[in-house]
Amino acid sequence: MKQIAVLGAGRVGSAIIRDLAGAFSVSAVDSDPVRLQEFEGVDHVSMTRADLSDPACIGRSVENADVVVNALPGRIGFAAIRTLIGCKKNTVDISFFEEDPFELDGPAKKNGVIAVTDCGVAPGMTNMILGFHASLMQVDSFECMVGGLPFERRWPYQYKAPFSPPDVIEEYMRPARMVVSGTVVVKPALSDPELVEFPGIGTLEAFNTDGLRTLLKTMPVPDMREKTLRYPGHAEIMRVLRETGFFDTRAVLAGGVRVRPLDVASALLFPMWRPAAGEREFTVLRIIIRGRLNGVPKHYVYNLFDQFDPASGISSMARTTGYACTAVVRLLAEGRIEEKGVVPPERIGALPGCFKFVMDHLKERAVEYHFSEEN
Amino acid sequence: MKQIAVLGAGRVGSAIIRDLAGAFSVSAVDSDPVRLQEFEGVDHVSMTRADLSDPACIGRSVENADVVVNALPGRIGFAAIRTLIGCKKNTVDISFFEEDPFELDGPAKKNGVIAVTDCGVAPGMTNMILGFHASLMQVDSFECMVGGLPFERRWPYQYKAPFSPPDVIEEYMRPARMVVSGTVVVKPALSDPELVEFPGIGTLEAFNTDGLRTLLKTMPVPDMREKTLRYPGHAEIMRVLRETGFFDTRAVLAGGVRVRPLDVASALLFPMWRPAAGEREFTVLRIIIRGRLNGVPKHYVYNLFDQFDPASGISSMARTTGYACTAVVRLLAEGRIEEKGVVPPERIGALPGCFKFVMDHLKERAVEYHFSEEN
Repeated sequence: MKQIAVLGAGRVGSAIIRDLAGAFSVSAVDSDPVRLQEFEGVDHVSMTRADLSDPACIGRSVENADVVVNALPGRIGFAAIRTLIGCKKNTVDISFFEEDPFELDGPAKKNGVIAVTDCGVAPGMTNMILGFHASLMQVDSFECMVGGLPFERRWPYQYKAPFSPPDVIEEYMRPARMVVSGTVVVKPALSDPELVEFPGIGTLEAFNTDGLRTLLKTMPVPDMREKTLRYPGHAEIMRVLRETGFFDTRAVLAGGVRVRPLDVASALLFPMWRPAAGEREFTVLRIIIRGRLNGVPKHYVYNLFDQFDPASGISSMARTTGYACTAVVRLLAEGRIEEKGVVPPERIGALPGCFKFVMDHLKERAVEYHFSEEN
Repeated sequence: MKQIAVLGAGRVGSAIIRDLAGAFSVSAVDSDPVRLQEFEGVDHVSMTRADLSDPACIGRSVENADVVVNALPGRIGFAAIRTLIGCKKNTVDISFFEEDPFELDGPAKKNGVIAVTDCGVAPGMTNMILGFHASLMQVDSFECMVGGLPFERRWPYQYKAPFSPPDVIEEYMRPARMVVSGTVVVKPALSDPELVEFPGIGTLEAFNTDGLRTLLKTMPVPDMREKTLRYPGHAEIMRVLRETGFFDTRAVLAGGVRVRPLDVASALLFPMWRPAAGEREFTVLRIIIRGRLNGVPKHYVYNLFDQFDPASGISSMARTTGYACTAVVRLLAEGRIEEKGVVPPERIGALPGCFKFVMDHLKERAVEYHFSEEN
């Protein structure tokens, strides 16, 4: 049985571990023993406590792994992949790190390993869908909206963080890059808010975030944008907090001590953003692709509406992100990806059979992307 | 020439000092030498640097004063008056302290001195206006809306603090007491927002604040409420910040240090709330009094719209607050108030001739309350 090491056993990491266990022997690695406790007695899962900010510890913890999943927070995600490449490990990453993954392309090629980065729902599935269609047709525009939200809307944030809360604030801080008429345009995150209707959910607000990432380099599509979805009003509060300086990482003098405002905001916001045990949430995603197939204009739409699974207790965000990741883990384990180096998901979507494999894998787990062709 | 000591030479204190100098010999007292510099070479003004949080220093600095003005921030305002009463000084106060002024009534009576508290525009003139009418008729309801605002509306706060910024946050934190059908009702500050039209200004938002203060004890009016005015949207942000905990005075652990969120919020907000040099601002006030005069229903309205004076550079908030205070300083200096103890402005409004004296005094300084009787 092949070995998979999963670094980070948070909400999403945990879903990945459970999905892989059985088909593989899985090693769950986390610095927090409480997180590891939940796998006690789970078949085919071993637990390793390790300081994942320490390269030596990462190295030791993945020694026997055939494939490693990097489900760490964005802050330490890039360093972890660099270490894994140094250890000659094939890696699938969902950590939402800020750095450019292609910086690691040379080292990965040199070490003869594959690093699939940004392999969640968005970025991740969004890349794969665009990669798939771009391999078959000329794509003129790509638009993507995605969000993970609680059903219960509580004032003022109407939000619970379905993954690492610091990464949510990161999303609101990083300048958002998009492509407009062939040119990369940078706007502040949270800009260009627009109200969008989703049947059965109602009105959500979409705003710019930096979700295109590798697509900016890999896809010669003249118009591309990615937006994040929240309940209307959330983005305005986040803009106010950001512009007032509450997310600043430069320390201010307050009451005689020097403190980073972001640390204070985190101390206050994160408890409010913590989902309650078993709290119902959903993931909503819409992708619009326009282009030409053999000269004929085409307009494709993908919609995803995925909900918390009360039977398993696994959140929708963990399902949609985690199962995209486990699909690619299987492709890697089966040796179906030959290219070495940093391989973003759009390249996997373009590989023969891989897109269907991933979509089928997700469908088996009740994560269904609804495809439609518009006139 | 009689001596007046003014404690606190901030925006409002400075206007008070300039208005009194000449008719009186004025001693400007502040802990900040920069603030005192502006009075160098001003006739009839002497400058004293003193630590006004220290009772002994206050005592020394007012030794020769016939009347003392307390224009300190709310935080140290109450302690200062207590000290002034101990020193047997007649006092006029505009410090917006939180404590109940009537706690000092006994000591003031015992020492044979007068302390006129809350003697600005609101509280202050609002009390005087109600006191005046209540001395002539049966008042059934009293409604007051007041705000000091910049003309330039900058996102997100659309606000500049015309007085001590910590006292602005105090206004948003203190539970608001009002009288509904004869019962005192307490609601959170910033509650019950409503949009109100002001000709020439536009739509403002009024919300509950704790502005009735002494009126709750002194006036047997069955319905009384006070609201603060801001541009629409300001209050919602303040509610979000408050309810998230950014105004909490209990320390949180953030980035390894313990810090009061209020200190961090203050460090970030106060620079944004600081008026630019010569920034144009205005004070708007509306009072609605309903009642019966000899059994005939009456409905009176007062409107004030006062603007920054570019000639003198004195802000409207300093004019409307400061000149209400200097009117009462004159009444005290002329011995026209006989009652000893804590005398809130509503009692001065009820004294024969005093209301007209104050209104004339304000009118001479171009602060005009427009009275109208509605049908």
